[in-house]
Amino acid sequence: MYKTASTGVQAERLWSRHVQMSQFGRICDGGVNRQALTREEVDARGQLLGWARERGFRVAVDAIGNLFITRAGREPNLSSIMTGSHLDTQPAAGNFDGAYGVLAGFEVLEALSDLGITTRRSVQTTVWTNEEGVRFAPGLMGSGVFTGSLALTQMLQSRAPDGVSVAEALTGLERILRPGDERLQHVPAPHTYIEAHIEQGPVLEERGVAVGVVTGIQGIRLYEVEVTGEEGHAGTVPVGARKDALRAAVRLSNSLYAEFADPGEETRFTIGRFTVAPGGRSTIPGRVEFSIDLRHPELSVLEIAERKTIDTIDECNGRPCAASVTRVLARKPTYFAPHVIELISAESRRLELPHLHLPSGAGHDAMMLSDACPTGMIFVPCKEGISHSVRESARKEDLAAGARVLANVLQKLAMQ
Amino acid sequence: MYKTASTGVQAERLWSRHVQMSQFGRICDGGVNRQALTREEVDARGQLLGWARERGFRVAVDAIGNLFITRAGREPNLSSIMTGSHLDTQPAAGNFDGAYGVLAGFEVLEALSDLGITTRRSVQTTVWTNEEGVRFAPGLMGSGVFTGSLALTQMLQSRAPDGVSVAEALTGLERILRPGDERLQHVPAPHTYIEAHIEQGPVLEERGVAVGVVTGIQGIRLYEVEVTGEEGHAGTVPVGARKDALRAAVRLSNSLYAEFADPGEETRFTIGRFTVAPGGRSTIPGRVEFSIDLRHPELSVLEIAERKTIDTIDECNGRPCAASVTRVLARKPTYFAPHVIELISAESRRLELPHLHLPSGAGHDAMMLSDACPTGMIFVPCKEGISHSVRESARKEDLAAGARVLANVLQKLAMQ
Repeated sequence: MYKTASTGVQAERLWSRHVQMSQFGRICDGGVNRQALTREEVDARGQLLGWARERGFRVAVDAIGNLFITRAGREPNLSSIMTGSHLDTQPAAGNFDGAYGVLAGFEVLEALSDLGITTRRSVQTTVWTNEEGVRFAPGLMGSGVFTGSLALTQMLQSRAPDGVSVAEALTGLERILRPGDERLQHVPAPHTYIEAHIEQGPVLEERGVAVGVVTGIQGIRLYEVEVTGEEGHAGTVPVGARKDALRAAVRLSNSLYAEFADPGEETRFTIGRFTVAPGGRSTIPGRVEFSIDLRHPELSVLEIAERKTIDTIDECNGRPCAASVTRVLARKPTYFAPHVIELISAESRRLELPHLHLPSGAGHDAMMLSDACPTGMIFVPCKEGISHSVRESARKEDLAAGARVLANVLQKLAMQ
Repeated sequence: MYKTASTGVQAERLWSRHVQMSQFGRICDGGVNRQALTREEVDARGQLLGWARERGFRVAVDAIGNLFITRAGREPNLSSIMTGSHLDTQPAAGNFDGAYGVLAGFEVLEALSDLGITTRRSVQTTVWTNEEGVRFAPGLMGSGVFTGSLALTQMLQSRAPDGVSVAEALTGLERILRPGDERLQHVPAPHTYIEAHIEQGPVLEERGVAVGVVTGIQGIRLYEVEVTGEEGHAGTVPVGARKDALRAAVRLSNSLYAEFADPGEETRFTIGRFTVAPGGRSTIPGRVEFSIDLRHPELSVLEIAERKTIDTIDECNGRPCAASVTRVLARKPTYFAPHVIELISAESRRLELPHLHLPSGAGHDAMMLSDACPTGMIFVPCKEGISHSVRESARKEDLAAGARVLANVLQKLAMQ
């Protein structure tokens, strides 16, 4: 008799794992600050490995600290079916962005074991290192190294603002690893990658739909802008003689916001980081650095937006402060594999879960994985579309529904 | 025979003391970061006390950490003649703002001793605690407590961003104090206070004048502005649904800058500190805090400027982010004592030094002291009027000229 993996998914267990995970880096009720490779994030990974060891799953780690929890299949030499996400968060975040994909994947492994299902291919749940890119730049670091679009040696040298390098921070993982764990130099590409995630947008909740079948991910470009003026005393330097870097940066940002102010426009323009030096109350700022995050589902529109951005910064340059911009990341729009999209739709239908197709507004490790293998994503609703905020929230039954679809999709793929 | 104190001022000695002092908190060639009651600032004070002990001057400290170096007069019960300034600096500052007033004062004490001059009144050089107000708010803390306009118990509880309180930081002074030093609970007001300082403006240098006779200090008001929106994911939240605190703060600051953009206007408007939270590159900012420093020599103009500022912030409130403003400091314009201004002019004339009357654009401890006793200031030129910057610079001969005027003024007063 064919057992369906989704029947082994336990909503309560999946929820309680989220609650337990939320203790690592907890900053307030529902709020988490668990940046990549900090003590808190390593502890969260250790908790997951503890659960994996209890179930007898295999543990492996690669050179950038990605963790692989494997439930071996009948033919372990075949490429594996992989799921997963990340455990790191933004500085003031919730408990579901990333954690859900990891814990839903782990729930599927447990469901398969509980039901005594033997798959042909191995099934793996992965924790990708530094998806968020807050403590270390760039984000999607673990999945980027894994798929070869980021260079390992360069990433190991990336440094946090306090000077700690990724290589140094990775030594923290030794604390949670055991002698029997595998240290992988080269990890073969999986057969297929499926990532479950909260939507981080309002569509599913607004339409009362349980499952989002993700068609792709909008393109993203990140920039760093530098504005340099001249420090001076706030009480003495006349207006006309000032080279106030903050004043110039404010005028520049104001022009940039105006460029992207049309609410009918799908372009997402965000300045998230904005630092002013030296920062004394009575000192005219000499230097401002800020980041730009620019996204759109279509490459051509993204390129026009980039042109506008660069032109606006160029126009500001030298009037009277120096202004320059550097692109630090460019990622084309991603289109997921049609047969994977179809499989997720079919399994949602079989479970009689309302579902719809939609693109992802946010970047995900699946974006990197799609370079290496057929890839897809499953979205579940989150409250008011809020994420990257302590107000992020999701419902137990929605998390379980997404995990059931994931379970059946992974099972189907692992039998191929 | 009457000896003139100025003849004992040694330009080389005064200059070399500046060079030695610049080693404490040195951040680059000519640059200093020596914030109040840090290890570096305490070490700088220790160096000064070392020199004082070599000369046999008396050392005293009060409850807010102001240091008093006294060369006793013939009638030590009379109120003393006081000079001095501060040794703390802005985060990226030069070697003369503050340090000059302390070292010129100390040079006068040495000159008096070298010449064997006995004064009627005692002459004191003071190091005021936390003039700059960078690490702890507010600035002018030591002189404000001394003159009673700031409350000691409240100041002791002021905390640095890292959580250290003034009370805790003050324990660092024990390291440089000795059992014989006086611990003062109440320090009597001086007979007269004279502070020497670099101009921090371009006037003296541009006109080739050695000595600025300071007529007063412009009024200053400090504000803290808070803009609160809602954090969200940079890739998913549509433009129309955003409550982007940075976007609102940028629009608001831009309006404020526009209010004070007229180069013919004497108002000084500066935003020096500007912090954006949470600060992730892919998170819509939920909160911005910034400071406003507003100055003008006339009270009525300052009050109009305050009205404009508050109105502009009120207009921004709720569209769509909350915006509020708190005044954290208000200080009326200061007018120095006419007979002190006249004395400084007369002594400059006697030394045949070109001099002119001018107001101070920057606040100084003398502003606080003018509440307690007749007060005056002596300015010397600094390069291009630059201060609060590592590019701050002054010339050996200008420093010596100012110290000579200071010496004769203090001597005259101490004989009264």
